[in-house]
Amino acid sequence: MPDSKPPQARRGAVCPADLAARYRAVRAQTEWLCEPLAIEDHVLQCVPDASPTRWHLAHTTWFFERFLLQENINGYVPVDEQFYFLFNSYYQALGPMHARASRGQLSRPTVVEILAYRAEVDARLVRFLDEADADTCRRIAPLLELGCNHEQQHQELMLTDLKVNLSHNPLLPAYRALAPAETATPPVQTWVAFEGGIHTIGTDGPGFFYDNEGPRHDVLLQPYALASRLVTNGEFLEFVSEGGYRRPEFWLDLGMARVRAEDWTQPLYWFERDGQWMDYTLGGARPLALAAPISHLSYFEADAYARWAGLRLPTEAEWEVAARGLPQTGNLLDARRFAPQVAAAKPGLQQMFGDVWEWTSSAYAAYPRYRPAPGAVGEYNGKFMCNQYVLRGGSLATLGEHIRATYRNFFPPEARWQFSGLRLAKDA
Amino acid sequence: MPDSKPPQARRGAVCPADLAARYRAVRAQTEWLCEPLAIEDHVLQCVPDASPTRWHLAHTTWFFERFLLQENINGYVPVDEQFYFLFNSYYQALGPMHARASRGQLSRPTVVEILAYRAEVDARLVRFLDEADADTCRRIAPLLELGCNHEQQHQELMLTDLKVNLSHNPLLPAYRALAPAETATPPVQTWVAFEGGIHTIGTDGPGFFYDNEGPRHDVLLQPYALASRLVTNGEFLEFVSEGGYRRPEFWLDLGMARVRAEDWTQPLYWFERDGQWMDYTLGGARPLALAAPISHLSYFEADAYARWAGLRLPTEAEWEVAARGLPQTGNLLDARRFAPQVAAAKPGLQQMFGDVWEWTSSAYAAYPRYRPAPGAVGEYNGKFMCNQYVLRGGSLATLGEHIRATYRNFFPPEARWQFSGLRLAKDA
Amino acid sequence: MPDSKPPQARRGAVCPADLAARYRAVRAQTEWLCEPLAIEDHVLQCVPDASPTRWHLAHTTWFFERFLLQENINGYVPVDEQFYFLFNSYYQALGPMHARASRGQLSRPTVVEILAYRAEVDARLVRFLDEADADTCRRIAPLLELGCNHEQQHQELMLTDLKVNLSHNPLLPAYRALAPAETATPPVQTWVAFEGGIHTIGTDGPGFFYDNEGPRHDVLLQPYALASRLVTNGEFLEFVSEGGYRRPEFWLDLGMARVRAEDWTQPLYWFERDGQWMDYTLGGARPLALAAPISHLSYFEADAYARWAGLRLPTEAEWEVAARGLPQTGNLLDARRFAPQVAAAKPGLQQMFGDVWEWTSSAYAAYPRYRPAPGAVGEYNGKFMCNQYVLRGGSLATLGEHIRATYRNFFPPEARWQFSGLRLAKDA
Amino acid sequence: MPDSKPPQARRGAVCPADLAARYRAVRAQTEWLCEPLAIEDHVLQCVPDASPTRWHLAHTTWFFERFLLQENINGYVPVDEQFYFLFNSYYQALGPMHARASRGQLSRPTVVEILAYRAEVDARLVRFLDEADADTCRRIAPLLELGCNHEQQHQELMLTDLKVNLSHNPLLPAYRALAPAETATPPVQTWVAFEGGIHTIGTDGPGFFYDNEGPRHDVLLQPYALASRLVTNGEFLEFVSEGGYRRPEFWLDLGMARVRAEDWTQPLYWFERDGQWMDYTLGGARPLALAAPISHLSYFEADAYARWAGLRLPTEAEWEVAARGLPQTGNLLDARRFAPQVAAAKPGLQQMFGDVWEWTSSAYAAYPRYRPAPGAVGEYNGKFMCNQYVLRGGSLATLGEHIRATYRNFFPPEARWQFSGLRLAKDA
Repeated sequence: MPDSKPPQARRGAVCPADLAARYRAVRAQTEWLCEPLAIEDHVLQCVPDASPTRWHLAHTTWFFERFLLQENINGYVPVDEQFYFLFNSYYQALGPMHARASRGQLSRPTVVEILAYRAEVDARLVRFLDEADADTCRRIAPLLELGCNHEQQHQELMLTDLKVNLSHNPLLPAYRALAPAETATPPVQTWVAFEGGIHTIGTDGPGFFYDNEGPRHDVLLQPYALASRLVTNGEFLEFVSEGGYRRPEFWLDLGMARVRAEDWTQPLYWFERDGQWMDYTLGGARPLALAAPISHLSYFEADAYARWAGLRLPTEAEWEVAARGLPQTGNLLDARRFAPQVAAAKPGLQQMFGDVWEWTSSAYAAYPRYRPAPGAVGEYNGKFMCNQYVLRGGSLATLGEHIRATYRNFFPPEARWQFSGLRLAKDA
Repeated sequence: MPDSKPPQARRGAVCPADLAARYRAVRAQTEWLCEPLAIEDHVLQCVPDASPTRWHLAHTTWFFERFLLQENINGYVPVDEQFYFLFNSYYQALGPMHARASRGQLSRPTVVEILAYRAEVDARLVRFLDEADADTCRRIAPLLELGCNHEQQHQELMLTDLKVNLSHNPLLPAYRALAPAETATPPVQTWVAFEGGIHTIGTDGPGFFYDNEGPRHDVLLQPYALASRLVTNGEFLEFVSEGGYRRPEFWLDLGMARVRAEDWTQPLYWFERDGQWMDYTLGGARPLALAAPISHLSYFEADAYARWAGLRLPTEAEWEVAARGLPQTGNLLDARRFAPQVAAAKPGLQQMFGDVWEWTSSAYAAYPRYRPAPGAVGEYNGKFMCNQYVLRGGSLATLGEHIRATYRNFFPPEARWQFSGLRLAKDA
Repeated sequence: MPDSKPPQARRGAVCPADLAARYRAVRAQTEWLCEPLAIEDHVLQCVPDASPTRWHLAHTTWFFERFLLQENINGYVPVDEQFYFLFNSYYQALGPMHARASRGQLSRPTVVEILAYRAEVDARLVRFLDEADADTCRRIAPLLELGCNHEQQHQELMLTDLKVNLSHNPLLPAYRALAPAETATPPVQTWVAFEGGIHTIGTDGPGFFYDNEGPRHDVLLQPYALASRLVTNGEFLEFVSEGGYRRPEFWLDLGMARVRAEDWTQPLYWFERDGQWMDYTLGGARPLALAAPISHLSYFEADAYARWAGLRLPTEAEWEVAARGLPQTGNLLDARRFAPQVAAAKPGLQQMFGDVWEWTSSAYAAYPRYRPAPGAVGEYNGKFMCNQYVLRGGSLATLGEHIRATYRNFFPPEARWQFSGLRLAKDA
Repeated sequence: MPDSKPPQARRGAVCPADLAARYRAVRAQTEWLCEPLAIEDHVLQCVPDASPTRWHLAHTTWFFERFLLQENINGYVPVDEQFYFLFNSYYQALGPMHARASRGQLSRPTVVEILAYRAEVDARLVRFLDEADADTCRRIAPLLELGCNHEQQHQELMLTDLKVNLSHNPLLPAYRALAPAETATPPVQTWVAFEGGIHTIGTDGPGFFYDNEGPRHDVLLQPYALASRLVTNGEFLEFVSEGGYRRPEFWLDLGMARVRAEDWTQPLYWFERDGQWMDYTLGGARPLALAAPISHLSYFEADAYARWAGLRLPTEAEWEVAARGLPQTGNLLDARRFAPQVAAAKPGLQQMFGDVWEWTSSAYAAYPRYRPAPGAVGEYNGKFMCNQYVLRGGSLATLGEHIRATYRNFFPPEARWQFSGLRLAKDA
């Protein structure tokens, strides 16, 4: 859009213009993800963990309205006060909220009304930025950035939640058409060794980071090696074929119990049709892509596979030390592939970023001297540090600008609906 | 639509034209009921019993396609073979079916696609009627009529299911705007007495009837009396106010257990706001209409109320003997009131048809020498004759042409989401 | 114990001596049933329905203490006030009670302590009878008789509950050694026909009866016939072998759902070992006795079998009219056989009393003009008249003096742990 | 027992006599714990986690029979082959087992029969030791020691399981009479500081240790301090009184969810009676001992308390480094106090061993280069390393010879039925 006025002509606009630009770009990306959807698709919640798309659209908006507008504008009047109840996710300090498992029980506000809610908050927020003084800008910039990162996280969840919700339909609908699966043979898996000793992990900035990534601190490692690439569907199929899901010697006790209780016999989206292994993907059902990385593993399955292979998962510190110097590139959401891709036949660690999140053996816990942020926003991370395991590296559904070596994702060990796989590790 | 061609011009049209006309009218009524809905509303299933509107639209269509077209056209090719699985409700003889409780887990086919499915089956069916010979017409006419009655039953369910599904939304959306509640005082309840002895109930025709309404047979009654009108909200409120939901002496054991397990403290849609009793209606939340009949009672609640009042529910035979000679008029769906109305101040039995279904004390069971219809359609009624109670008289959501004195509706004793209330009875 | 004093020497003993004698005999019978048990056996409650033996011993005692001693002795001090809470079963009018499903969570009072409780209440009750005046005797005699009948009911439950509790032990322990199963061929099943018309059923006395057996009233029957004997294990095995448990066409909808949810593939205690059908009996596991009556059927299974056989269950009125003139003899608890026996090869109806309770197609409901007894004892029967079906005729675990033609037993349609089977019926 | 024969007279006795002596002592201790119990008490299992006493008696015996006798005696014939199924706990490599949650569904073998089983295995084992050659002795000694330690662990579980099982009885029975609670004021809590840097934790022996205690390895700590004593009931009562259980800001998300789902309002065994706080102890109900350490906390409660206090739990490495040089004395099972005791008013760390297990913030995980033992016995620890937290220091129910500074106990964060409390920590 051509604009001949010089920047200084925007009177009162003391916030850097790229704040609003960044905000707009993040918001637009969210809406772009919904383009292929039918209205009906926005409503589904087939499992408690997988929120409806309409909820994601509204909740990310609520985050900006509630944390930024409400807290920084005197006498602020909400777009709709009931949305404060409906679209709060889990911030207890902000009052009661609609039950998570009931998000799929709502048809109103409709998608159109939610998009109008988004537009209204966008307008108010941009106006607010436009009118803010320099102090205010400095003060709210970190929160705005947190809100943008928050929305990017939900972009990934929109895809994983949508996938699991659509998968309950016997018609197995496609989210969008994908490129055909690659048929290349994956490169041989080799080992990349690392030295033991004291290493430093975590971050205190500069640049955006979540509170759980800090403080930066020393850790003591023993010598170790990481596999050069992710485990593939074909490799995991061997585990399945050798009765892996029926042999307790490979499983954690809770894992085996889950396998039996839910009758797991293969990864979440695999199924057999006419003697062929099929995979439900964002492009619908298609033959299992043997050369591509395995996805949608729980921690239990990743751990059992590693044990079957006589190896182990990396710790999160081992992973981070290895990733620290690498370029943050890979099959990320920016590539718009929407499916894991076969590793490149290159020396060194491949696929560290993108494709699938990599389970580590590290229970999700606070780093030494960790302090959650004060106020309601302090509920973002800390209160979830129990019975979850850390995943690293991002996936095909993660934006490149959102991921980094210190980034800690986390899910319960039974979670299978994320784009999650594994890289093997061993003692050196 | 003016049509100057004489009827005989429709060559081959040997089926009476009113068969197709009736079919079209029933189908149009279904779609009319959906007019006020947002697309999102069609998807909800908040409790296993309450199917999504989109499912009702499709299932009623499936009934005609599967029972009529498929069985009567050689080499018939279904509109979509997968719909035979998706939209079969419970006819085991026709093969496997999608699980009832999972109907809300589907967003596809979309509403638009389902409406196209309806249109396609409509076209095929009318063409089939158009081309059928006289024998075929005679043979399929009862099944067509069954399909029409089946769809009318689902019209009522569409409203009851929609109401319970929308009620899970804290916004309490309205289905459509209603006329304001009447504020008149209800007429005094009086008693209408009936003689004992041998009476005949049930029907063998002529005219359409469900198999569970026959055979016509004799029953032996003792003298009894029925209340002149339905129990009102105001009367039921006394029961609530006197601690009725906490006093086991009025309740069946299973009823008290249900009250406690689900924490019932008043009828399903009642709630208190600022010290006032409110009622969630098809027009949204509004102050409780004290003079209007109580609705949405379970059998447990109706039975407990009657016991509290020192009276009892009628048996279905008592109800039918009393209703047999009365005009089948009342506050039915045809009136488009969508809410129970205050009884008229007239002598004799009022409100026998319409307003709310009336619970009877009769367990739903086969009449003597009852035989289900042969084939899959025999699953329509007979297999449900267990742990359900009979309701009589239709409701505000029942079409006038669909109800009659011999009509037997039935629900489990804990069911509250129907338009169901009660009329008191006593021994005479 | 010889006692040379003349009866008149018992000063004040105005209650008929046989009241106390009857009481003592009933109590002794209960304790005799426990003789083969280990202390540990008294504690088990493996399913909510099957109370521990120690609870039955205490609850039957509580019934006499609470309803008779407490209500008739001024200033009565309970043996242990806490027992009023612990051993009340379901009499809400008497205050709160220990949860039914938690009865197996108690080890105290111990069996020895409960036997001491029994002895103490026995002593108090006999003393009370000894000292009561004539008016009191007349007044309390019906309640004493109710208490005796109540205890006899629990004698049967002690056996059925014990059996299901022991059956959860992989060792399949025997309650006591049984005579070997008969190997005779059962007599051919024939039909005994009855006329339609008005019959009278139910009772108003004289003699003890439960309130649910009255009032005596007329019923209108159509001509019918009953099978001459009970269905045998061998006959039921045919149903199993022909895939009966997998064929929905024979089942009520709720029945099929239960079959699938609980994976029923044969009657409760049947299992296969080395290719042979075995049956867990009160004598432990033994080969299935093909000629003996089938036992431990739910209503669902009895009904499905009848439908498979092209026949039906009798109504309770049909059964009672047929049973009314017959001698109340059979394989009852008095015979101490503890297993169903092969029918005699005699003309007329066999096995109407004893062996197994016979499911009828009648939902358990109040007879016309039924009134429960006033007070807490009115909770004995009436409040259970919902979602249960009537069984008739008693079983191998019923005392002969406890059963009669008008006796109405009742259980939910899914109940399998009673000694329950079926006799076929048909329209004539 | 006087024995005049010189030791060398025991021909063939090449195993050190103290092996058998130790075995006998451990076994006798188990049986001593049962002395106060009624037979009925041995049967209870009121929650799936709390196994019946009779099961513990049998399972510990099975461990010796199955791992030691069966594996080391050619042609060994089990005492009862069915016990291999009944009394295996979780060793999948040894075949199927009776379901854990169903252990309370068994009354046979009876307690007397189980004691006979114990005696028979004892006799066989002592005979085996008596006859074993030196090589065999050396080989089996570690396994025998493991079995003894295993039985000691079950001794503690017998007490914790019994306590929770008896607590379901409204009579609140006492296990045995306890000394009256101390009323002394607890000493002021002070801080003991420790330096950061590289420390070594874990053990590779000598002396018995569980595989999860090794390998010995270096850890990197930051400076920290531990509280001088355990948190008391009185201190925890402040948290309760200030609404601690209702304030989400102190709780992990899973913790708050558990609090709400199970309606926790205070520690497990606390209750109010007549306005006074009571505590259910092994000596029955008694007024809460304010000066004594709080017990029966879940990790969730311990963590919430620490957060409320503005402090934190120690890591397991911090605890071990602090405990390493301390004498392993305290209020342990040897003291036969059966209740936590008030801390001594002495300088330095008090109560590090005994009283209650101390929750640490460390998720239970493998130490670097951990390898489970080969074979079935390798299932002892490793497979439970998921969703559990480490506790340190032993409790009033732990034998002094069983505990040590490197000992790692572990339970899920919601577990409350152990003798578990907390010691505060902070960064220094």
